[in-house]
Formats: sequence, C-alpha cells, structure tokens
Amino acid sequence: MTFAIGVDIGGTKIQFAAVAQDGTVLCRHQVPTEASRGPAQLMDKVLAGIDRTREEMRQAGRPAGVGIGSAGQIDCRSGEVVYASDLLPGWAGTPVKRLVEARFGLPVRIDNDVNVVAVAEKVYGAGRSCGSFVCIALGTGIGGAMVEGGQLVRGAFGGAGELGHVSVDFEGPLCSCGNNGCVELYASGSGISRLGRDALAAARDEGRPAPGWEPASRDIIAAWLAGEPLAGQVMDRALRALGAAIAGYIHMFNPEAVIVGGGVAEAGEPFFAALETQVRRRTSAAMRDACRLLPAYVGADAGVIGAAAQIWHYGDDREDESAVGAV
Amino acid sequence: MTFAIGVDIGGTKIQFAAVAQDGTVLCRHQVPTEASRGPAQLMDKVLAGIDRTREEMRQAGRPAGVGIGSAGQIDCRSGEVVYASDLLPGWAGTPVKRLVEARFGLPVRIDNDVNVVAVAEKVYGAGRSCGSFVCIALGTGIGGAMVEGGQLVRGAFGGAGELGHVSVDFEGPLCSCGNNGCVELYASGSGISRLGRDALAAARDEGRPAPGWEPASRDIIAAWLAGEPLAGQVMDRALRALGAAIAGYIHMFNPEAVIVGGGVAEAGEPFFAALETQVRRRTSAAMRDACRLLPAYVGADAGVIGAAAQIWHYGDDREDESAVGAV
Repeated sequence: MTFAIGVDIGGTKIQFAAVAQDGTVLCRHQVPTEASRGPAQLMDKVLAGIDRTREEMRQAGRPAGVGIGSAGQIDCRSGEVVYASDLLPGWAGTPVKRLVEARFGLPVRIDNDVNVVAVAEKVYGAGRSCGSFVCIALGTGIGGAMVEGGQLVRGAFGGAGELGHVSVDFEGPLCSCGNNGCVELYASGSGISRLGRDALAAARDEGRPAPGWEPASRDIIAAWLAGEPLAGQVMDRALRALGAAIAGYIHMFNPEAVIVGGGVAEAGEPFFAALETQVRRRTSAAMRDACRLLPAYVGADAGVIGAAAQIWHYGDDREDESAVGAV
Repeated sequence: MTFAIGVDIGGTKIQFAAVAQDGTVLCRHQVPTEASRGPAQLMDKVLAGIDRTREEMRQAGRPAGVGIGSAGQIDCRSGEVVYASDLLPGWAGTPVKRLVEARFGLPVRIDNDVNVVAVAEKVYGAGRSCGSFVCIALGTGIGGAMVEGGQLVRGAFGGAGELGHVSVDFEGPLCSCGNNGCVELYASGSGISRLGRDALAAARDEGRPAPGWEPASRDIIAAWLAGEPLAGQVMDRALRALGAAIAGYIHMFNPEAVIVGGGVAEAGEPFFAALETQVRRRTSAAMRDACRLLPAYVGADAGVIGAAAQIWHYGDDREDESAVGAV
C-alpha cells in the first residue's frame, strides 16, 4: 500500500499520521508540543513520532516519504524554519528537513502549516476544481495561503500567505508584526477574546450587568449563537473586520473561492451566513460574482493529510526546481 | 526593424507609440479620450491611432503586433473589457482584441493598464532581477499588479491586482467598490485631495488661517515639500495609510520588491524616505529584510512600452494556454 507519513507541528500539539494516497488516515497519534522545553526537545519529539508511525505501519512496507507542516515561516526549499513566533520559541533556524532525511533516509517535504492545509484542499477538498483560491485559517492567530494557476504563491523565500497581518485599521492597536490594526487582532480566536474583554470592561464601567460569558472566543461564539446581545456586538465587529479583509483579498487575487477554516469557523452556518453578508456588500460586483465563500472541506485532520499529500504532489528534489511550487 | 505598437487607454488620454524590442519609443502621439462620447467613439479613436502609427512607421515594415493596456478590468484571454469605472462609461463588454485583430490582421494582446506597467518593469525596469514583486501605481486612483515566479498573478478572470481596494479602515468612509476605508481613499491623488479638503474644513471651523494651498494632490504635495504644517499632517496620514497597506502586501506576498509609481510617487525622494519609514516599522523583520521599496524605473512612457512589450513576452495565441501568464 502506498502511504506517506504526515506531521503537523503546532504550538499546542504535534500530530502524526500515516495517510494513504486517497487521503485516508490509516493511523494517528499526537503528543503535546511543550514548546517551552526548547527546539532540541521538539525535534526529538518529531523524530520519535515518525518512528512510532513507521513501527505501527511496519506491515504496510516503506512509506513514500515524510511530509511536515509547521507553524511559523518555512523555507520550503532549504527545509529550514525561517521564523517562529513565541508559540515555538527557538524553533527558527532548525534544519528540519535535513534532520529528518538524515534519520530516516526518506524523501522529506516541509512547509508552513497553512500551506499544507491549502494542499489538502487542492487535492481532496473545496479547492479541487479551482485554479486560484485563498485559504484562511481562523485559529488562535490567522494564517493563510494563496493558490494561483494551481500553484502555491510563495514569494521571495516561501513566506507568502500571512493573511492575518493585513491592517484593517491603520490607526488601530499595535500588532506583534509592527503594523497597526491587523485583522488577526479582531477575527482570530485571540482577537475575538480581546474584543470580548474590551466589551466586558466597557459594560462594567457603565454599570451594566455582566452578560454571563467569559472572554474566551469559544464562549463568546456560543453566547452569540444563543442570542446574547453583547456577544452579538463583539461578533459583529469581528465579522465586519474579517469581511473587510476578505473583500481586500478578493480584490487583490480575484480568486474562484475563499476557503475559511480553523476553530473560529467551526461556529458553522450562522458564522458563514453573517460573513457572506459582510463580504458581499464589501466586494465589487464582477469579482464577487466570480468567487465563492466556502468552509474548509478537510476537517480536523487537514494538517496531517496536507502534510502527507506534499509527498505525492510535489516533484522529487532531484527534479527541476519549477516543480517545487506545484500543488 | 522589429517593433510593436503600444496603446495605453486611460480616462483622460489615449497614448500610441511604436516601440522597438529594446524598449525604445520610435514615435508617439496621443489623443484625448473624451470617454463621455461613449465606447464606439472610443474604439474608433483606438483604431485610428493604431492606423496613424502604422502610417508613421511604414518605412520600418510590418509591426510584430499591437499591445494594449486599458483602464478597468480586462479578461486577457478573451480580450474583452470585464469592468470599467465611470472613467470609461460603457467600455465594459467591448471585445477590443477581436476588433483590433479584425481590422489589422496582426497579433493583439490586451491587459489591464497596471499589469502592462508591471510587464515594463519586469522586462526593462526595477523588476528585471526579481521573480516576485508588487507594483503599485498611485494615480487618480490606486492600481496594482503582482508578479510571482516571473508570472503575473491573474486570478479567476484576470482581475487580480486591485491593490487600491484593500481596506485600511474597516469602519472608515464607504468606497465605490462597496468596502469601507480602502487605501485608495487616503493615498491616491483623489484620496490626498479628500484628506486635504477635510483638513481645510477643520481649520476653517476652528478659525485657523488658511494655509494657502488648494485641495488638489499636486498642491498639497508641493506644500508638504515646502514644509507647510497642515499639508504635512495630510501627507502624514496618507503615508501611514499607504505604509499599512504596503506592509500588508509584503506579509501576503513576501515579495523581493515593492515598486511604487504614478503621479503621487513623482514627489520623489522625500516621499520614498517617509514611506520607507512607515513600511519598515509596520513589517515583520524577515519579510522586511527580503524586500526593497523601489521607485518605478520606466517613466511616463511605461504604459505604451509595457503594452507593446506584451507582444514579445507572451507566447502566440496558438501556443499552449500556460504561456498566457508568462511575463
């Protein structure tokens, strides 16, 4: 059986899976990242998890390769981590591809965690019929990826796709990237929490009763879905900011689809209906009519499935360089 | 001698030139667009101008083709105008490529006016050494184009690159595109004029003396360069909005260069120095260090030169479709 090993390295957990070429997950496990213990420990966990997956799949034969998705900015050619936020302290500079190749003697691909989700959507999901689409992942932060002419847009060193760090308020709060009012500060999990804290503080200052929710994005979204007015105001603001940003992506890329996933998007149909209203009113007619707003198709396993799918959907390193960009 | 005819169709004037393959303009003329007279008259002017250029070049032989850049959204495959703003009323739907081919029996290419400027920069200018770059044209409005892996990013129907219609204030003034607070409302010629009118009105309301400039972008920029404080406040706001937008483009595309042209950028060195300060402070370190902010290299003739350059730098229609995107 042809399968590849997929690894998804996030700030909280590392997921491992053996994935068949049709996208079926054959086995999986996960371990806590414990990123504060440093990059060497993290690399050891990655190697140990791959080893365990190989053991579990011993009967199935040799894997076609190891595909890795990691948080941070990844140079997919060198296979090194270019930049990692405080989620993975010290991870920048780690030559992940070289270390995994040296240990297992298998073909290895590594890319940004959202780029590999775009690969999953292109190969198995909502992007299957699209030459050009934009993926947005609304998690603790906001990540993104763009596919144009069937290929991931990579830029100078593979860092393209930081769709969360687009300002929607140039005089707004300072973001960790240096810009002001990035959309991540409004519509990510942490952004919604921030808006929730501000709304609770304002209500308290005005002597209004507490609405009964904690300022965590999950609680705020649940309260919004239940019709609580203050949570409604918070989500309305988040959705306007996100709608403005998505209209901007559409004007820039003229995509056939904008695919929205991540924890915040799991709020489901009411979230998509409200977001679609914002995006439609903010987008010029021709671009809007050419573009669909779609929920991510590949679910919670998108990270490991996309990571593994890199193995089949890119050329071998020995092939010409132009294959690197192909999805 | 190998030459092509370049045509640049704008809201105010239509420019025609014969352009040698090395980018030299061999002859040129221009006519007023008089767009209010409608699309049929406009098309007649385009055909007459091409005819006149052929006549002027009769000694040099048959042109290699006709390349056209037009304001609006262009479907470069069908050669039709998809959308035109009020600058060119009724222009949408015109099958420009087919009409020019039918009249002259020459290969014809048509694209958005800013895409052809990006072609000029890629072939002859600041983008020559770059695989990925972003072009911004700060004119009456703001247009843009992105090159990735040596190819123009086109999107679903060739409409990609509307970099002016990216919101930098999701609760700001309503834009014609439907979004709020688009960067075009702050940093284009008309945007700077708008900010100038607001600043003059506020000064008047507060009984402050008039600063001695008219709210036209050219006058405001001249007053800013001369050190007039109120014009300084206006330009500071415009530059912060533009800096926030450009930082967003850099985070999205990870380009090797952002090339800035158009009338507003003709303010020159002080403008670029102030813009660079804004962009640097708003962009994350790795992306910033990989990217240069550059003035457009090809000057006032960039429209006709880029229009003509399409003829040599794209494959013939009979070649495979993938050549369409190549710069």
